[in-house]
Amino acid sequence: MPAFFAGRRQLHHMIDFRSDTVTRPDDRMREAARDAEVGDDVYREDPTVAELESRVAARLGTEAAMYCPTGTMANQIAGRVHTERGQELLADRKSHVVKYELGGFADLAGLQVRMLDTDRGVPTPEQVGAGLVEEELHRPGTGLLCLENTHNARGGLAIDPEKIAAAADVAHENDVPVHLDGARVFNAATALDVPVTEIVDPVDTVMVSLSKGLGAPVGSMLAGPEAFIEAARRTRKLLGGGMRQAGIIAGPALCALENVEALATDHENARALANGLDKIDGFDVQTPETNIVLVDVAGTGLDTEAVLESLEEQDVLATVFGPTTVRFCTHRDVSAADVETALGRIEAAF
Amino acid sequence: MPAFFAGRRQLHHMIDFRSDTVTRPDDRMREAARDAEVGDDVYREDPTVAELESRVAARLGTEAAMYCPTGTMANQIAGRVHTERGQELLADRKSHVVKYELGGFADLAGLQVRMLDTDRGVPTPEQVGAGLVEEELHRPGTGLLCLENTHNARGGLAIDPEKIAAAADVAHENDVPVHLDGARVFNAATALDVPVTEIVDPVDTVMVSLSKGLGAPVGSMLAGPEAFIEAARRTRKLLGGGMRQAGIIAGPALCALENVEALATDHENARALANGLDKIDGFDVQTPETNIVLVDVAGTGLDTEAVLESLEEQDVLATVFGPTTVRFCTHRDVSAADVETALGRIEAAF
Amino acid sequence: MPAFFAGRRQLHHMIDFRSDTVTRPDDRMREAARDAEVGDDVYREDPTVAELESRVAARLGTEAAMYCPTGTMANQIAGRVHTERGQELLADRKSHVVKYELGGFADLAGLQVRMLDTDRGVPTPEQVGAGLVEEELHRPGTGLLCLENTHNARGGLAIDPEKIAAAADVAHENDVPVHLDGARVFNAATALDVPVTEIVDPVDTVMVSLSKGLGAPVGSMLAGPEAFIEAARRTRKLLGGGMRQAGIIAGPALCALENVEALATDHENARALANGLDKIDGFDVQTPETNIVLVDVAGTGLDTEAVLESLEEQDVLATVFGPTTVRFCTHRDVSAADVETALGRIEAAF
Amino acid sequence: MPAFFAGRRQLHHMIDFRSDTVTRPDDRMREAARDAEVGDDVYREDPTVAELESRVAARLGTEAAMYCPTGTMANQIAGRVHTERGQELLADRKSHVVKYELGGFADLAGLQVRMLDTDRGVPTPEQVGAGLVEEELHRPGTGLLCLENTHNARGGLAIDPEKIAAAADVAHENDVPVHLDGARVFNAATALDVPVTEIVDPVDTVMVSLSKGLGAPVGSMLAGPEAFIEAARRTRKLLGGGMRQAGIIAGPALCALENVEALATDHENARALANGLDKIDGFDVQTPETNIVLVDVAGTGLDTEAVLESLEEQDVLATVFGPTTVRFCTHRDVSAADVETALGRIEAAF
Repeated sequence: MPAFFAGRRQLHHMIDFRSDTVTRPDDRMREAARDAEVGDDVYREDPTVAELESRVAARLGTEAAMYCPTGTMANQIAGRVHTERGQELLADRKSHVVKYELGGFADLAGLQVRMLDTDRGVPTPEQVGAGLVEEELHRPGTGLLCLENTHNARGGLAIDPEKIAAAADVAHENDVPVHLDGARVFNAATALDVPVTEIVDPVDTVMVSLSKGLGAPVGSMLAGPEAFIEAARRTRKLLGGGMRQAGIIAGPALCALENVEALATDHENARALANGLDKIDGFDVQTPETNIVLVDVAGTGLDTEAVLESLEEQDVLATVFGPTTVRFCTHRDVSAADVETALGRIEAAF
Repeated sequence: MPAFFAGRRQLHHMIDFRSDTVTRPDDRMREAARDAEVGDDVYREDPTVAELESRVAARLGTEAAMYCPTGTMANQIAGRVHTERGQELLADRKSHVVKYELGGFADLAGLQVRMLDTDRGVPTPEQVGAGLVEEELHRPGTGLLCLENTHNARGGLAIDPEKIAAAADVAHENDVPVHLDGARVFNAATALDVPVTEIVDPVDTVMVSLSKGLGAPVGSMLAGPEAFIEAARRTRKLLGGGMRQAGIIAGPALCALENVEALATDHENARALANGLDKIDGFDVQTPETNIVLVDVAGTGLDTEAVLESLEEQDVLATVFGPTTVRFCTHRDVSAADVETALGRIEAAF
Repeated sequence: MPAFFAGRRQLHHMIDFRSDTVTRPDDRMREAARDAEVGDDVYREDPTVAELESRVAARLGTEAAMYCPTGTMANQIAGRVHTERGQELLADRKSHVVKYELGGFADLAGLQVRMLDTDRGVPTPEQVGAGLVEEELHRPGTGLLCLENTHNARGGLAIDPEKIAAAADVAHENDVPVHLDGARVFNAATALDVPVTEIVDPVDTVMVSLSKGLGAPVGSMLAGPEAFIEAARRTRKLLGGGMRQAGIIAGPALCALENVEALATDHENARALANGLDKIDGFDVQTPETNIVLVDVAGTGLDTEAVLESLEEQDVLATVFGPTTVRFCTHRDVSAADVETALGRIEAAF
Repeated sequence: MPAFFAGRRQLHHMIDFRSDTVTRPDDRMREAARDAEVGDDVYREDPTVAELESRVAARLGTEAAMYCPTGTMANQIAGRVHTERGQELLADRKSHVVKYELGGFADLAGLQVRMLDTDRGVPTPEQVGAGLVEEELHRPGTGLLCLENTHNARGGLAIDPEKIAAAADVAHENDVPVHLDGARVFNAATALDVPVTEIVDPVDTVMVSLSKGLGAPVGSMLAGPEAFIEAARRTRKLLGGGMRQAGIIAGPALCALENVEALATDHENARALANGLDKIDGFDVQTPETNIVLVDVAGTGLDTEAVLESLEEQDVLATVFGPTTVRFCTHRDVSAADVETALGRIEAAF
């Protein structure tokens, strides 16, 4: 056990709601890692990566897909490839690309991000229309609309395909392409009970994470038209994402694709957790739509750090998500029984 | 077998000298992938990654190290973290960072790269002195000296620690830090029969590839002072290199560290290959110092593409490396017997 | 008369409310241009520029000031010099730096602009507090707060010094510097009847335009601490603002400094214009605080382009400023009598 | 007299060979500044600027031209408008764009500059061919070839039109555009006794300085195809070069165009100066081709700073231009008699 854990209780006692990124590969994935047929993927010779890319493209209904070490990289590649120097990018103010990617669109691609304040994380057609800027002498033209589904920072909201389509339509009418940060798009499809293709169909490109609820150890996919993905391969190289025998992680990622159905369980667990948390004094719980439960803890009179500490003393982990907000995230490595246990522990603490 | 290979002969007949990046993980590495203890490395909780980072730091004699998906990312991170906006970076014209990283220092970090024409890929103290620019009204000051060892584009040259130290000293006297692209620094140490720490000691940071001659499927290390590596973690996130359960690939990478001694065999094989190639009419062979053999094929009257095609017809693969230059690279997956077989095939072709 | 004007009526018939940037140098300024003592300002040897810089610094109460060809350049310099790569910049969504500078902070400096929706163009302390981002693994820290006074896009609003100070205080408490786009800061001081130093005092740096209401042909000033302005001179060179015998335009700019008192007349004229426009059917006029009059023309049933055309047919010029908004701007080259004449013409048209 | 000059002898005693940028506007230019018809050039309504732009375009044989505050800005605009993100730019290592523009191509446009070591500042067709990079997975493609004539840092060398054409042809054959930094292109045309159009004809765009030997107080022109100049206007705005009543400086600049013939006198004076300097012990003089005289002062046993100090004590100013090199630059404000006087003073000092 590395020094990092010294002085902390053992993690196997912990019930970890911090993020679905903490999911660990199961035995099947581990076998797939061991057994993957590999090659040098920079030469496009890794058959497992190729298999993963074609399977994901087929599943999403796109021409092509590309494996990336992270979703952040996939989003950043999309931002660059869709745009030119000196353009704007339109996105919800609380979207991941704006909040949690270190300002990469500005830093790496020079794009001014026009932040929209939207209702459920998705701009209305009117908001898109008002946010689009036509290039002129003083103004950078809009180069990309970026959407997110499910919307993480707003509580894992599952955005209706119609909302995605309506926003995308306005962009397309103005010759502006649309990228979807679909890190948890399978959660959205599951919650809404629609085929994922229905969500993806109206957009030009989509990023899908395999290492969140689906449980792959590493990786996200960028999917879209063939020519776009070709260009994206150069930008992936630029950013340092051209891995070699990536089949070792693409193998488990292929297994992760089979975990889509199980996301429904995470959503059930989130609802059970929300119901339980809602009974705790001072907790104001946002009804979960997918696997994310946001709790406003202002009513406890404690700050979020203090709440997290109390939870951790009870071997329950969650995340600060705003000045008075704590996020709980359910995932494959937390069972219905774990949720019950956790609720018991939390009640004991508050 | 994926569509990509359709119509090509089966790869197991091929003897592949294109690059040491094509090395495939052996059974021990595959077992390590399966069995790796993992956690979410963005939270710094992957014990296998932590183990790899501390082992590499210890081996290189640096305070800390960080695992990256690729060497390109590690180099680009170093370029950004060492410098500020509006500075210059000094590097050999044929170094990897200048030739093969898509102009990332300019594109991602805004740095003007001052390209030096050096003898063996390493600038003399005089060249460093002449290349350093003091910041003034019209001129960007030098923010980083970037060296490379072994030097790939110049034929895998093993640069003496004294040469590295002499160049670095001039930079340091002028308060300019030094980064070493040591993708193949273990090849250099092996060839020169010096401890790798002797090569690394004079520089501030170093990148070491685990997925070339050492055979790991994925990954390179960025090593240096603790505070530098802390800052580097943010830039890794920016570029999209913050992988999650990266232990799955860090496990095999740990095994790869045990392959350092075996690099000597690659060098022997390179010498045998060079000796054999030298007997072929029209081949002008540069004596290899490590695992790279450069051949000037101008004397054959054929262009490099035609030479590669003739080789490929004989189930031998190599790489174009210049207008009249072909590169052969030996590695773990090419045995001494393979070299003999390849030479026979090549003689048959020419 | 150049080809550009062919087919248009002669401009001297026109009453031009498009912008105070159209003000032309008067005879005194023209004499000053002819008679300016000059030198090479890149060598810091132009005495007229030096005089202008020290006079402006004294007037604003800053240590130093620097002459720039435009206010856009001065703002962009401030953005770069205050910040580092990979930071955020906080500004009102409708501020000039966000709307009309081609996304320069992102494009030239890589800064993510966090756009605030504020009441009168100035964020409250709470908004500043909520908008500031602390640097962490996923997030770029805030590097600069940028304010604007008067606020152009919101109708030339004169922002109280207390509001500026309150916003700046929150930034400073968090070690974030503050830049004021004070292109029309003398209009603000005039309207509020406070010394300009009272507005400038709470901020670190300020840009002041001399070529708008003050009537200079060319130029804006960037003012702030000595060390900041020294650094700014390098960035001015980078952006291509290192002019040579700039005394020829700094001379008229010195005269322009004497036009501050006359701004009160522009404000009176704006009020008279607003009163007159308000009587026109379908015009919804925002009460002017300085020299800018915004008119919502939705009530006319015409789009803004059609309104502008009708005005132009009557030899009156204004500017489109939003989907249903037209901007009139009063300035030195429009007298009280011109306003009367213009109102007569406009009434005739509508 | 500003504080800056305190303690120095009066400048009118000085004979100033530092640069032709120090030239001051003569009475005709000053009258032109006073009398210029002006308008707001951002609206394209300044007739004097329009006149200057059309006169320069006609003179250079290009479709259009645009007035810029400096040559650096004009060069940087050309770099951006010709290229896309992630490309390379090819230029002589000692060219102004590489040495004296603060690394702007990398910093502002993200371009990797491929520095060529050329004979007289102009690459041979072979060097251009070898320097061009075809875009591929690892490499940024070449987006622009940048030439310079006369070549400042190599001693004001006048480059033959044939040399320019030969280099440009190779670029064009590879679909790479060519920009000429012609800050002193009229000096080149004068020295070579060819029409300036012959030099400009083979390139796509050219920058011409009006504020060097031609004596205008401020400004350079960027000239090229109509569509290019249209795009350039946006980039000029981005960089902060959209000046308002710029006719005040465009007027003198129009006068400066009439000073082209007089450049021959500067060249004569440079030859006289060179002849005289050559007689001084320890001075190794490069034969001037235009108005720049480079002197290697290593033979004096003094460093360049000491040489400059000795000169300054004799009221003669020059510039450090390399480790042992001093530059003298002749111009309109230094007469043949001044050269004689200066030589007398210099002989007295050495």
